[in-house]
Amino acid sequence: MADAGGAVVDLNADLGEGFGRWQLTDDEALLSVVTSANVACGFHAGDPATMRRVCERAAARGVRIGAQVSYRDLAGFGRRSMDVPSAELAAEVAYQIGALDVFARAAGASVAYVKPHGALYNRAVHDAEQAAAVVEGVVLAGGLPVLGLPGSQLLSAAADAGLLAITEAFADRAYTALGTLVPRREPGAVVGEPDEVVTRAVRMASGGGVTSAEGTQVAIAARSLCVHGDTPGAAQLATRVRQELEAAGLRVAAFV
Amino acid sequence: MADAGGAVVDLNADLGEGFGRWQLTDDEALLSVVTSANVACGFHAGDPATMRRVCERAAARGVRIGAQVSYRDLAGFGRRSMDVPSAELAAEVAYQIGALDVFARAAGASVAYVKPHGALYNRAVHDAEQAAAVVEGVVLAGGLPVLGLPGSQLLSAAADAGLLAITEAFADRAYTALGTLVPRREPGAVVGEPDEVVTRAVRMASGGGVTSAEGTQVAIAARSLCVHGDTPGAAQLATRVRQELEAAGLRVAAFV
Amino acid sequence: MADAGGAVVDLNADLGEGFGRWQLTDDEALLSVVTSANVACGFHAGDPATMRRVCERAAARGVRIGAQVSYRDLAGFGRRSMDVPSAELAAEVAYQIGALDVFARAAGASVAYVKPHGALYNRAVHDAEQAAAVVEGVVLAGGLPVLGLPGSQLLSAAADAGLLAITEAFADRAYTALGTLVPRREPGAVVGEPDEVVTRAVRMASGGGVTSAEGTQVAIAARSLCVHGDTPGAAQLATRVRQELEAAGLRVAAFV
Amino acid sequence: MADAGGAVVDLNADLGEGFGRWQLTDDEALLSVVTSANVACGFHAGDPATMRRVCERAAARGVRIGAQVSYRDLAGFGRRSMDVPSAELAAEVAYQIGALDVFARAAGASVAYVKPHGALYNRAVHDAEQAAAVVEGVVLAGGLPVLGLPGSQLLSAAADAGLLAITEAFADRAYTALGTLVPRREPGAVVGEPDEVVTRAVRMASGGGVTSAEGTQVAIAARSLCVHGDTPGAAQLATRVRQELEAAGLRVAAFV
Repeated sequence: MADAGGAVVDLNADLGEGFGRWQLTDDEALLSVVTSANVACGFHAGDPATMRRVCERAAARGVRIGAQVSYRDLAGFGRRSMDVPSAELAAEVAYQIGALDVFARAAGASVAYVKPHGALYNRAVHDAEQAAAVVEGVVLAGGLPVLGLPGSQLLSAAADAGLLAITEAFADRAYTALGTLVPRREPGAVVGEPDEVVTRAVRMASGGGVTSAEGTQVAIAARSLCVHGDTPGAAQLATRVRQELEAAGLRVAAFV
Repeated sequence: MADAGGAVVDLNADLGEGFGRWQLTDDEALLSVVTSANVACGFHAGDPATMRRVCERAAARGVRIGAQVSYRDLAGFGRRSMDVPSAELAAEVAYQIGALDVFARAAGASVAYVKPHGALYNRAVHDAEQAAAVVEGVVLAGGLPVLGLPGSQLLSAAADAGLLAITEAFADRAYTALGTLVPRREPGAVVGEPDEVVTRAVRMASGGGVTSAEGTQVAIAARSLCVHGDTPGAAQLATRVRQELEAAGLRVAAFV
Repeated sequence: MADAGGAVVDLNADLGEGFGRWQLTDDEALLSVVTSANVACGFHAGDPATMRRVCERAAARGVRIGAQVSYRDLAGFGRRSMDVPSAELAAEVAYQIGALDVFARAAGASVAYVKPHGALYNRAVHDAEQAAAVVEGVVLAGGLPVLGLPGSQLLSAAADAGLLAITEAFADRAYTALGTLVPRREPGAVVGEPDEVVTRAVRMASGGGVTSAEGTQVAIAARSLCVHGDTPGAAQLATRVRQELEAAGLRVAAFV
Repeated sequence: MADAGGAVVDLNADLGEGFGRWQLTDDEALLSVVTSANVACGFHAGDPATMRRVCERAAARGVRIGAQVSYRDLAGFGRRSMDVPSAELAAEVAYQIGALDVFARAAGASVAYVKPHGALYNRAVHDAEQAAAVVEGVVLAGGLPVLGLPGSQLLSAAADAGLLAITEAFADRAYTALGTLVPRREPGAVVGEPDEVVTRAVRMASGGGVTSAEGTQVAIAARSLCVHGDTPGAAQLATRVRQELEAAGLRVAAFV
């Protein structure tokens, strides 16, 4: 367990992932729990009116607004890896950040960080070229902290560019012995049992690492924990995670 | 003719109206002529990489960057009027301005004004509700000058909101006796003869108004002249217009 | 009440109105109740994999497959009226029918009718030009029965083109004294009380017409009743409607 | 050289690759030269009105209509490889074929074959899973001949499914010693010199193979030659290719 004096952890979740008529995430409930909101910017989800509303609500609650940038892929919800040339990808990332920032500023805040979504997130773990393109896009947009997986090309590239590189962990995802996520399509990739999610969250946030799918112990350095918002009961689970983190003496606060 | 001491006119053109593989406007040539560039923001045209490039080139030449906001309609190039609810339209307008602004700022400039495109432009002439929604979007995005037709609901709404309302005229479009544009689908809507376009431009910019399609004289108060960029020979024609304006003693300069 | 020997009514509902990650309609439940399925074709909703699945399930149950054609407007769910030129609209309608037909045929059926969606449906009630364009698209696609509002331009144009024109009524929508639907944005437009929906359905199907919002009696000639599928409890309500129709001696069967 | 009695070669080109306001290919000119038209189906290019027009013109000239199916990627013109799950990809392919077929049938013809476009074409050369998904889509759409690279996974899968597998060669693309195309991003990938293109075309069609970029001789078995339509002078070059093929005693005719 972390000592009472210091350990701080951020809770982030994906929000605003509907599009027009379609809703997905319970934005109101999640905003009452998390400290950082990864807001969809229109490329995999997130129509402008939803982006505006989520920014207003997040700003009102003091929740940090992050740009959840994605491949341009509404039909695939940004979950299909794409070979986007670097110049295009960098510009697409900057475009999304700028579009979101207008709503964040209108609400009296500003975009505080960037987190890639879905396939782009996964690809930027190991693909140095796309990781560099994402970072180029963030720099184009003025330079912001980048949230990603420890050891990822994305965080390396962000640090190399002088950006703040924030590590995160996933309490409801299985890890490989190498510390990467077990792909969603594999059995056991998602931890479904709420008690286990809560236990893992507290252990991860306390510096205790995680037990990999292979049974080995993996160290996890995570300034932020991601809780998922697009599953039934997501908000209740996030609430329990937060309560248990605080009960364990951790302070839940944004990283910026 | 205007007296040498004072008359100033802006030249604006639509730029960056390709999308991905498709190109439409000769951006380089037009940027060497105009003083204000209406840059497509992705809803009717304008992919992010093109937006970035046009902003860089415009900033390098000192050409003002305007957000050419549109209905979300790539298939119809934004030329199909749409009944978009006000809240959605306002957010869509703000989204586009924010997306463009990131590239303008990366190039050392910023979005200097807003001009609706195509069907949205035409509708905001007489539709007070959509005009107000566009202005709400501009205000959301921080408040910027709005470029539009004299007497339009758009410019009224902009002025009411405390925004700078800039009037423009079209040297290559026929006017009705009421001072509105003859719709494109009607015969004679577009003035095709270059000499006539040039003559009309100089007369409009000098305060001489225009002869309507019905043959009456119409007064035109235009701080800016729009030259079209999506026709063959557009850049050459724009060059001639500028030369003749200057030869007539007018000063060609941006309005902001 | 209809005599036991003859009255037949079709039940139709909108299905497959998700898109990629987003779901909306409870397709399985609705397919166990309705006799005609209006399947979204990709322009306002309906990704290809969903279209395929809905066609397979509908064909397996003997439910007729209809093409629910729409404006190209994912962001607005096809609910925003658009000024689409006739040639474009006709081609867009044909495109959607052809795309759906491939899945209907793969499932051993074929597209049996066409019903416009949302704003296109409403506009084709009174806009003769768009009604004619929709019908042109249906003819291009080989000619199919068209489902629409009694007295609409759409059904007139369909009949003029030699197509079967099928009338429908909405048990959960308020009617004006003229027999048109009260627009959704007006109060009382949607009948929310299930008992009332059921009562209205039986009366409409039995030839008893409907009481308008103004309190007058309006005759309704409807070969089909539309039950909505995108509200919570939609499938249960549709089930009750069907049970009461049958209890009242009506036969529930497709019109083709 | 082929003997006068037998050798037959098809000429295919990509057509209808505009979208709405944007035009790319000189469809009229190409239709007077080629025997098979690969018509864009709306996913990388090709709006419905263009699809209709190209089908009408092709049918009137007796040119075969092929479905040029693509990833859903207007912004990238279908040139960005995507990890589309098989079930989605198969449905997307069938959707496009069905949409095009409606226009082909309205013109008195029908879709005669399928050829993947861009990144999907290249990926289906070596990716057995995506190749199988494309073929599944073609089978869903009723089963049609498939046009592809000799030795590709695509043609293997097509043949395995009992479809006609048609080989094609590219006179204006450099080949590797293995008989695959040199990727576009590499220098020398495209043969720009018209005389060389013509010479290569005749040699390929006559069974003489091609000299690879490494200088080795590669055998090419091609029932069809692809001529590109999206470059300036494309139609003139295609005309020369056809003239020289005929002058060399080859018969230019469709493969179906």
